[in-house]
Amino acid sequence: MNPAQLVMQRLDALAQVSEADGETTRFFASPAMRRANENVGLWMREAGMEVRVDAIGNLIGHYAGVTPDAKLLLLGSHLDTVRDAGKFDGPLGVLVAIACVQELNEKNQRLPFAIEVVGFGDEEGVRFQSTYLGSRALAGTFDTAELKRTDAHGVTMAQAIRAFGGNPDDIMSAKLDPNRVLGYVEVHIEQGPVLEQNNLPIGVVSAIAGQTRAQLVFAGEAGHAGTVPMGLRRDALCAAAAFVSKVESHAQDCAGLVATVGKLTVLPGASNVIPGEVQLSLDVRHAEDAVRVRACAELKALAEQIARARGMTLMFETVHQNPAVLCDRQLTSVMESAVRQQQCEVLSLPSGAGHDAAAMAAVTPVTMLFVRCKGGISHNPAESVMESDVGVTIEVVNQFLNGLAEGW
Amino acid sequence: MNPAQLVMQRLDALAQVSEADGETTRFFASPAMRRANENVGLWMREAGMEVRVDAIGNLIGHYAGVTPDAKLLLLGSHLDTVRDAGKFDGPLGVLVAIACVQELNEKNQRLPFAIEVVGFGDEEGVRFQSTYLGSRALAGTFDTAELKRTDAHGVTMAQAIRAFGGNPDDIMSAKLDPNRVLGYVEVHIEQGPVLEQNNLPIGVVSAIAGQTRAQLVFAGEAGHAGTVPMGLRRDALCAAAAFVSKVESHAQDCAGLVATVGKLTVLPGASNVIPGEVQLSLDVRHAEDAVRVRACAELKALAEQIARARGMTLMFETVHQNPAVLCDRQLTSVMESAVRQQQCEVLSLPSGAGHDAAAMAAVTPVTMLFVRCKGGISHNPAESVMESDVGVTIEVVNQFLNGLAEGW
Repeated sequence: MNPAQLVMQRLDALAQVSEADGETTRFFASPAMRRANENVGLWMREAGMEVRVDAIGNLIGHYAGVTPDAKLLLLGSHLDTVRDAGKFDGPLGVLVAIACVQELNEKNQRLPFAIEVVGFGDEEGVRFQSTYLGSRALAGTFDTAELKRTDAHGVTMAQAIRAFGGNPDDIMSAKLDPNRVLGYVEVHIEQGPVLEQNNLPIGVVSAIAGQTRAQLVFAGEAGHAGTVPMGLRRDALCAAAAFVSKVESHAQDCAGLVATVGKLTVLPGASNVIPGEVQLSLDVRHAEDAVRVRACAELKALAEQIARARGMTLMFETVHQNPAVLCDRQLTSVMESAVRQQQCEVLSLPSGAGHDAAAMAAVTPVTMLFVRCKGGISHNPAESVMESDVGVTIEVVNQFLNGLAEGW
Repeated sequence: MNPAQLVMQRLDALAQVSEADGETTRFFASPAMRRANENVGLWMREAGMEVRVDAIGNLIGHYAGVTPDAKLLLLGSHLDTVRDAGKFDGPLGVLVAIACVQELNEKNQRLPFAIEVVGFGDEEGVRFQSTYLGSRALAGTFDTAELKRTDAHGVTMAQAIRAFGGNPDDIMSAKLDPNRVLGYVEVHIEQGPVLEQNNLPIGVVSAIAGQTRAQLVFAGEAGHAGTVPMGLRRDALCAAAAFVSKVESHAQDCAGLVATVGKLTVLPGASNVIPGEVQLSLDVRHAEDAVRVRACAELKALAEQIARARGMTLMFETVHQNPAVLCDRQLTSVMESAVRQQQCEVLSLPSGAGHDAAAMAAVTPVTMLFVRCKGGISHNPAESVMESDVGVTIEVVNQFLNGLAEGW
């Protein structure tokens, strides 16, 4: 069995490790996560690694370098999933990393740096509505105030970590020493359609886009759909519709910008009542913070203009902002050389979704590879990656490791 | 106490007759409706009328004409309400009619036609989701199959009518003989802002607008709000927004047309997911059926064009159609003469909302007066009508009755 076949088989097996029968659901610090850590831990040992679980529940496999004091290169992704997830989002990056170490181990090859493969315990953030718990522990940006958060059953994060076998009082000790770490490498499915559209198995991530999330409320006046003439209406949905169209055209006109109204609620919401109020969400992302910030300001101004022209009030609240994270130029150029040996074209693309790499960038340089996924579909059992693409990915990561060692 | 003061006082009293404390809620064939019929029946007797309740529960007061074989003129509106209603929607028309008969009775005046004041038992249709039960019984358009409908507690309409003291087997006997009836006159609050905008207490209704209700579904493709570039999206909300804007501009460009998207649901409806599907309602009304039918066809074509241009599918289903009902020219010209004696301007306006007059038009000519209401608000405890406007209305209806008698 070749390494790609093995990875595919392991992904199938891991998809069965779930909190619910017939679907793949693994939340942070759950019994299913414990079984996932056990399974993946066995595969790490088979690949010649020493295995441990850290204070927050991250699974870490250590493959020593040529010398005991060698620096560390981290490879990984997350092992938790959303509810009713696909097989690839997260586990692919962990299992590809293990496959690469296994290849080194089979050749008895040691590199001038040690490798640690990390299976993060929480990236999706479903259980405690707080993302990157695992990678933030390693990056030293974990906020211990979050330990008081409760899940849907009233269990606090601290209790959950303790029940899992971790130690909530010791999470800060999981922090990596930036002087010991070379960088963090993450393989992940693209979760978008760009590679598929370009007929390419893999792409190199340039940056993880920054994100602004805002909530808007257009408040006009409800009224009877039959009795209020058009000229006397202040229809909040008509205002919101004009705004949604502006969001779309504005983003289309700005390279690399994505802007989405994903949630929209009409009040009172009856077929014979003129909408008096519309609440909507706005999600804006770009690899360059300045572009995103400017776009948000322009969209806010457009919303105000629409509301003013229609005699309505507008509430615009920025609820969340994440700066963009640039992938490290040096590591990424080694990655690009590796890709070039497998693919005629090296496609560099930003990641519109967040990843553990975004959190890890706080402590060490990061680089990321995207793998083509069918239809760009993710967070869904229909998530699909070709075995041949996994083969290309393993080859590229192997060459990346060798390239890094050669440049030593 | 002048007649307008008396009507206002009675409206206040009637608002207390409710199924729920602290609000005005009277559904068809409820105990509250029985008490309302008893109260209003007493006021009818005070005004010199003989009172009966028909097989479906309509309250009818008879004021004889000069001869026993005189034809009948009907005046009225409904006594049922929506949940947590205002005081005026319905009762105003019944109490103004009683006030006018009382004035005739106090002067011992008999007209060449008999008058029947009707308090319809169901116009709002809240209990059985079926409107105009009362007026359809009189018009002979009641569908006895509806007797099997059940309310929220599983009580059938037949059971409810029987419990109220009516006779579900005898409803067809309530039908009026069109040869005996001169016409039906209804006074109602406007439920819109046109009279207020024109500084006029009352207006004459030209027609009750026809209505088309449709449901649309735009189906595109859901996706990750961060990872799908704008050019690769099929965002169902962007399509729906374009349609909502077209609905608004199309209606603005067509005199007398009102078109409303009152309900809109985005699926899956998460801030970080591109909308894959949008379901929305469309409500189109106009006093001329041809204009409404043409507008609906044009809006459907626009929706199809939007869907096609965006590579989406469209479902367009017409769920309900009501033709327009024209008010009778002859009766309405007598009404206009009466209005002219009170107001310098006779404003003729279509009714965008349905009324008992729309059902009554199936059996007899109809005419309607609209009374100004504050902010156009109805179906709400904030419903408000000025006493002075009620005074004008009573004068106008008195003059209408005398005008009709003089023209005999």
